[in-house]
Amino acid sequence: MSTSSPTAADERPVTAALIVIGNEILSGRTVDANLPFIAGELGGIGVRLSEVRVVRDEEAAIVEAVNALRARYSYVFTTGGIGPTHDDITALSVARAFGRRLVRNPEAERRLRAYYKDREIEVNEARLRMANAPEGAELIDNPVSAAPGFRVENVYVFAGVPRIMQAMFQMVKPGLTGGPPQLARAIVVFRPEGEVAAGLGEIQVRFPEVEIGSYPFMRRERFGTTIVFRGTDRARIDAAAAALLELARSLGAETEEDAGVTAGP
Amino acid sequence: MSTSSPTAADERPVTAALIVIGNEILSGRTVDANLPFIAGELGGIGVRLSEVRVVRDEEAAIVEAVNALRARYSYVFTTGGIGPTHDDITALSVARAFGRRLVRNPEAERRLRAYYKDREIEVNEARLRMANAPEGAELIDNPVSAAPGFRVENVYVFAGVPRIMQAMFQMVKPGLTGGPPQLARAIVVFRPEGEVAAGLGEIQVRFPEVEIGSYPFMRRERFGTTIVFRGTDRARIDAAAAALLELARSLGAETEEDAGVTAGP
Repeated sequence: MSTSSPTAADERPVTAALIVIGNEILSGRTVDANLPFIAGELGGIGVRLSEVRVVRDEEAAIVEAVNALRARYSYVFTTGGIGPTHDDITALSVARAFGRRLVRNPEAERRLRAYYKDREIEVNEARLRMANAPEGAELIDNPVSAAPGFRVENVYVFAGVPRIMQAMFQMVKPGLTGGPPQLARAIVVFRPEGEVAAGLGEIQVRFPEVEIGSYPFMRRERFGTTIVFRGTDRARIDAAAAALLELARSLGAETEEDAGVTAGP
Repeated sequence: MSTSSPTAADERPVTAALIVIGNEILSGRTVDANLPFIAGELGGIGVRLSEVRVVRDEEAAIVEAVNALRARYSYVFTTGGIGPTHDDITALSVARAFGRRLVRNPEAERRLRAYYKDREIEVNEARLRMANAPEGAELIDNPVSAAPGFRVENVYVFAGVPRIMQAMFQMVKPGLTGGPPQLARAIVVFRPEGEVAAGLGEIQVRFPEVEIGSYPFMRRERFGTTIVFRGTDRARIDAAAAALLELARSLGAETEEDAGVTAGP
C-alpha cells in the first residue's frame, strides 16, 4: 500500500491518532481493547500515538474528529461503525469529512459476494452496505469476514471487533513509515512519588532527550512509583535509569525492573 | 458542592466529557480503568458521557481539550497529572485554560501538612506542589491520600490512580444534576449482524425515541449480535425489545437477555 507518509529521515516524531467510534464504549458497557493494541503496534514501528478520541455514533461527531486529527497527525485510525446495521455510519461520515461521495465500491462488492457465495449465505442489501466507501478509497483486506476497511489519504478505517481490527492493522502495517523506534525502560521504586519527585525532576533536567514519566500506584495499602524512561537512544535511557537507581539507593528504597515495558522492536 | 448545573427539568440530555491525561495510556502500557467507572456512574444519575479524549502530558494538549469540551458539555472530568512530579502539569494547564493564575491553595496546604504530620512523613516542596490549584478553584476531598482534586466551573479535576479517582468521584456525585435516568436492555441474537440488520433498521424507525445499538461479536468461530436498547421510557424499550424477539423468532434465531447491562438506578 503506498501512502504519502513521512520518511524516517524526518527528525520530527511520526505521530498518530485513534478515533474509537461507538456509544457502547461511552456507556461503559464495552471496554475498548483496540487502543492498547494499536498503541503497542505503533510504538514498535516508531509511530507515537499522540491522541485518542472516543466519539458517539453520530455523523457530526465523527466528521469533526476526523478533520481535526487528520490535519494534525501523520496517521489517523478509526475503529467501529462499518457493519451492516443502521447505526454503522462511519463510511458515510468519513466520506463527508473528505467532501467525497459515498459509493458502492465494485471490488468490495465482488469480495463480499464471493465470500457469501462460498458459504451459502444470503447476500442482502444490508450486507452490501458494507461495500460502500468514499469515492477513491483504497480497500483494506479483511481476512476474517471479507467486509473490507478502507483508507482515504492518511485516515485508516477499521472494524471495531478486535480480531478483525487486528487483522486489518497487520494488512496496512507494512505501508506505515515510522521514525526511529521508541525504546522504553521502566523501574519500580517502592516509595511514594513525593519522595522521589525532587530528585527525579533533576534527572529530567539532566536528560532532556529522555521522556521520564512517573506513575504512582498502591499495592497492599503501600504507595510506590513506576518510573518510565522513553526515547530513541538506548545509552541515554540507561544513563537516566542509572541515575534513578542511584537516587533510590540514596533514599534506601527498594527497586525492581518492570518487565511490563518492552524494549521496542 | 454547588454548581451552575443544568436542571432535571431541562429536556435536553445532560452530557459529560472525560479527558484522560497521560502518556502511559497512549503508549498502551497502562490500560485506562477510569472511563468505564465514570461512564457507569454517570449513566446511573442520568448524565450521558458523550466524548472522551486521551491526551499527552503536554500543556497545549490539555488546554485545548479542556476549552473545547467545557464549552460543549454540561460536565468535564479529567483524570491524571495532579501528583508531585515534574510531569504532573494538569493543575497548571487547567489554570491556563481558564486564564487564571495557579496559586498555592491554603486549605489544600493545610490538609497536606496535617496528613503528613500525622504520618511523620516529610513535607517537601514536591509534595506541596499538590496544593497548587487555579485561583478560585473549589477543592475536591481525597480521603485516600489527602492531596485534593479541584473544580473550576464545570471542570472537575481528579487523580489518575483509580482508587483515588473513584473516591473523588463519590465526593462530587451528590452535586451533579442529571437528567432522567438512562435505562438499557440488551439482547443477544445468535446470528450475524447481516441477518438482523434490515429488520432491526425497521424497528429503529418504529421506535425513534429508543437508541438501538448493534454490536457484532465472535465466539468459538461463530458470529452473533448484541442489540442494546437505551432510553428513558421503560415501556418503549420493552416494546422495541419485544419487536426484536419477534424478528429473531421469524429468523429461527436463538436469543438471550444480556445481564451485563444494568437497568439503571
